[in-house]
Amino acid sequence: MTHETRWVKKVSLPPPSLGDNTADADRLAAALKKSLGTRTIHMDLDLLRRLPALLREWNYRATAVLFKDGGGNGILAHLAAPDSADTLCGLAVDLGTTRVVLRIIDLFTGTHMGESVFDNPQVAVGPDVLARIHHVEKPDGLHQLNRLIVDGINDALRTLCDRCGISRANIHLTAVAGNTAMTHLLMGLNPRWMIREPYIPAVNRPGVIAAAELGIDLHPTARALVFPNVGSYFGGDLIAGILYCDMDQREDTAILVDVGTNAEVVLGNRSWMMACAGAAGPALEGGVTRMGTTAGPGVIDHIAIDPDSMALDIHTIDNQAPRGICGSGVIDLAAALFRSGMIDIRGKLLPDRCGDRFKLKDGLGHLTLVPAGQSATGQDLGITQADLDSLVRAKAAMYTILETITGSVGMQPQDLETFFVAGTFGAYIDPASAITIGMLPDLPLACYHNLGNSSLGGATRVLENPACFDRVKHIRDGITYMELNVNQDFMNRFSAARFLPHTDTSRFPSVRWPAA
Amino acid sequence: MTHETRWVKKVSLPPPSLGDNTADADRLAAALKKSLGTRTIHMDLDLLRRLPALLREWNYRATAVLFKDGGGNGILAHLAAPDSADTLCGLAVDLGTTRVVLRIIDLFTGTHMGESVFDNPQVAVGPDVLARIHHVEKPDGLHQLNRLIVDGINDALRTLCDRCGISRANIHLTAVAGNTAMTHLLMGLNPRWMIREPYIPAVNRPGVIAAAELGIDLHPTARALVFPNVGSYFGGDLIAGILYCDMDQREDTAILVDVGTNAEVVLGNRSWMMACAGAAGPALEGGVTRMGTTAGPGVIDHIAIDPDSMALDIHTIDNQAPRGICGSGVIDLAAALFRSGMIDIRGKLLPDRCGDRFKLKDGLGHLTLVPAGQSATGQDLGITQADLDSLVRAKAAMYTILETITGSVGMQPQDLETFFVAGTFGAYIDPASAITIGMLPDLPLACYHNLGNSSLGGATRVLENPACFDRVKHIRDGITYMELNVNQDFMNRFSAARFLPHTDTSRFPSVRWPAA
Repeated sequence: MTHETRWVKKVSLPPPSLGDNTADADRLAAALKKSLGTRTIHMDLDLLRRLPALLREWNYRATAVLFKDGGGNGILAHLAAPDSADTLCGLAVDLGTTRVVLRIIDLFTGTHMGESVFDNPQVAVGPDVLARIHHVEKPDGLHQLNRLIVDGINDALRTLCDRCGISRANIHLTAVAGNTAMTHLLMGLNPRWMIREPYIPAVNRPGVIAAAELGIDLHPTARALVFPNVGSYFGGDLIAGILYCDMDQREDTAILVDVGTNAEVVLGNRSWMMACAGAAGPALEGGVTRMGTTAGPGVIDHIAIDPDSMALDIHTIDNQAPRGICGSGVIDLAAALFRSGMIDIRGKLLPDRCGDRFKLKDGLGHLTLVPAGQSATGQDLGITQADLDSLVRAKAAMYTILETITGSVGMQPQDLETFFVAGTFGAYIDPASAITIGMLPDLPLACYHNLGNSSLGGATRVLENPACFDRVKHIRDGITYMELNVNQDFMNRFSAARFLPHTDTSRFPSVRWPAA
Repeated sequence: MTHETRWVKKVSLPPPSLGDNTADADRLAAALKKSLGTRTIHMDLDLLRRLPALLREWNYRATAVLFKDGGGNGILAHLAAPDSADTLCGLAVDLGTTRVVLRIIDLFTGTHMGESVFDNPQVAVGPDVLARIHHVEKPDGLHQLNRLIVDGINDALRTLCDRCGISRANIHLTAVAGNTAMTHLLMGLNPRWMIREPYIPAVNRPGVIAAAELGIDLHPTARALVFPNVGSYFGGDLIAGILYCDMDQREDTAILVDVGTNAEVVLGNRSWMMACAGAAGPALEGGVTRMGTTAGPGVIDHIAIDPDSMALDIHTIDNQAPRGICGSGVIDLAAALFRSGMIDIRGKLLPDRCGDRFKLKDGLGHLTLVPAGQSATGQDLGITQADLDSLVRAKAAMYTILETITGSVGMQPQDLETFFVAGTFGAYIDPASAITIGMLPDLPLACYHNLGNSSLGGATRVLENPACFDRVKHIRDGITYMELNVNQDFMNRFSAARFLPHTDTSRFPSVRWPAA
């Protein structure tokens, strides 16, 4: 690979002569094709009309912003003067159901110029994917959802561009990674058939679209890559994640787990990839993804219990007064309760060991974590036995998925050497706690890698490096999507995983057994 | 090749199921890719938005109009109901400097539905390519020329569609073949650098453009292939001609000669093609292309001389009263004069043999063909020695080009077995006359094939058969363009060819030697 590693190419063409009378456009295309490694370079007619005068004005030198189309052919997205002072930018978009992140990068240097995070304005219509897809049935519903996200991006972009000191016309390329429903709504595609058997999206490979057609206010000829999906439940955000962690280039078999509004798992290496999504199995309904509240200031994200004093050591996000507990906090808590013998291997609260913190209300056990006087809400903050039961189902589901997907290729969860954890889950979870309760396999902690926002990371990669554009397609087409068949075998595994850490304790040799 | 041979494909898709949950667009694309033999099928976002509802309404059956892009990838230009009664049409355009021909074809059956011929409205601005390119320098000149041809096509198309009983929205594909200057003006590309050393067009391979971008009123998503050119002097009309005569698929080496407003020659077979254009050599200035007047009613296109009575047997187009003589008439005349000994081997009128028809005016010989009383103009109709001198230069130039291009591959003109003659020249010329004066080589008359409007024919082929689309690219890229180097060697050949039929009479064994 001798191609340069950016979409921006400085070219200096051999000037035409009687011995080389190739046309202007073809002369430019020849140089760009060579540099990008494509068979052709498409130019818009409008650019073609201006090209002969520009090339002569610039003495056959120029700065080109390239991209590719869905068929892998080159596109000339923009042509600037050879020594243009304009910053040539790209926009990476993580199109989340709950929040959207924009990142502007300098296409020439690769510098990350700035980021903007905002709540997906579609939340006003419905908090989750399902509610939004139902909203499409209402008159003008699809158009309304489409406008909300397009306007939301344009509004945030205006401010972000100001902050970065650029104009929106400086942005020539964008890459958008999101789940299948969110990308459908961005493109104005009806997602109604995604939630009806047999769960069919409108498109798997949207390819490259004019940003103007999407309604995103960038340079008039800017191009947008919308990440492809593998199906209704395995979206472009995961494809971006695979790209970001380089699973498709690794010799060793790695696993990527992303728990956001849904739980998705990919296992693989440079030769093959298996994927599945939690939403496919009814056993997971209300499972992994519905524990606790959304992370935010004052939300408990980590808890430990002093083994001697049994005192709680609570950490909240931004160190604010506690107002709730998020998924990672619940996992930490369950692990601590288990280690200190306050819950049994079924996850049941043991009143004797919990002491004053335990109360029985309407026949349901409650454990107080923060008394009313110390919480932000002015009320006792705690969890119930029902919350713990829910966690046990969730962790069992997660472990069963891991066991099923590794089992499909003759591996076991404990054989894994590289374990990527993405999304909010990855950002907050303590693998040691997740291992203690048997949610994640008992691997050395060094095997676990928090990827952060891998969807944004993958979208950024595509803008940083043309080779990554091609990898997106190869990743998409190289994934074998496994329907999680909730059959007797799955349910047996699920049942075996409903104990802490597992009925087969030999799988979790590092987990300290509760004293009790 | 098992692909069907039309751009219109009837598809019946396997309906989605839990076991096959490919998205709607990708399901359709998979069937179309297979049928067209491309790696991808591009769909416009607007169609994508309507697709899921359409496929369900049509029970996963549909009629697709396909095309390809410049990179050889598939394009879904239109999707109709499986049993749609709409006629799905294509428009072939021969974009001539003097006249334009439109032909509508049924893309499904291949039927030619109708044709329309009209004068290129740019003639009002300038009669020839050069005058029009100069006009571009005037304020708004390029835009004006562009509007003239686009409006001209749209106007003629309106009438033609009415006559064919279709609407312009029934036309989904168009293929436009013309010389490099004409296609540049149609696309709004500035041709000014084509006539200035080193003679560079704006583009060699315009590829496929949205018809709407060209301003041609067809279906809103219709696509246009603008034939590629090899250079400023070797245009898409010739590429279309090569396609039409299948030179690129023949085992034997054939030659194609097109004399329209310019003289172009291609020699080749399935393995290689050499091309050159007359305009490249100053020796041809005012040569082949400027003989006589434009063909039209009342113009003499054929002349014979009775060897006994020396009476002229004159044929005019549409059998109207004579008003001029066109190129083929001049060639016939010269051949007849030579056979009857009225001109010598230098093409000089022999007063003794011409009798009363000969007059000397201001020292220049005149030969009267039609006396004033019988002509449409009311004046004597004839030719001068200067006209004959011009013809001799023209025929010498043509023969020298043929000798040069065959010589470049170690052949001689008389080695040719298949000789295609295209354009107006081909339509009217009598090969026997051209052989007699040594303009064309002395081959059996059966070797000569009049191709007619091969530019229109080639454009039609592309719409009839997807395989021809690919051949256009291969033809374009397979041509070696030979600059006609007017060096001493060329001038020696040219001098030798300035006698009737040639200084080396052994090359023309069939030519009857004048009795005198």
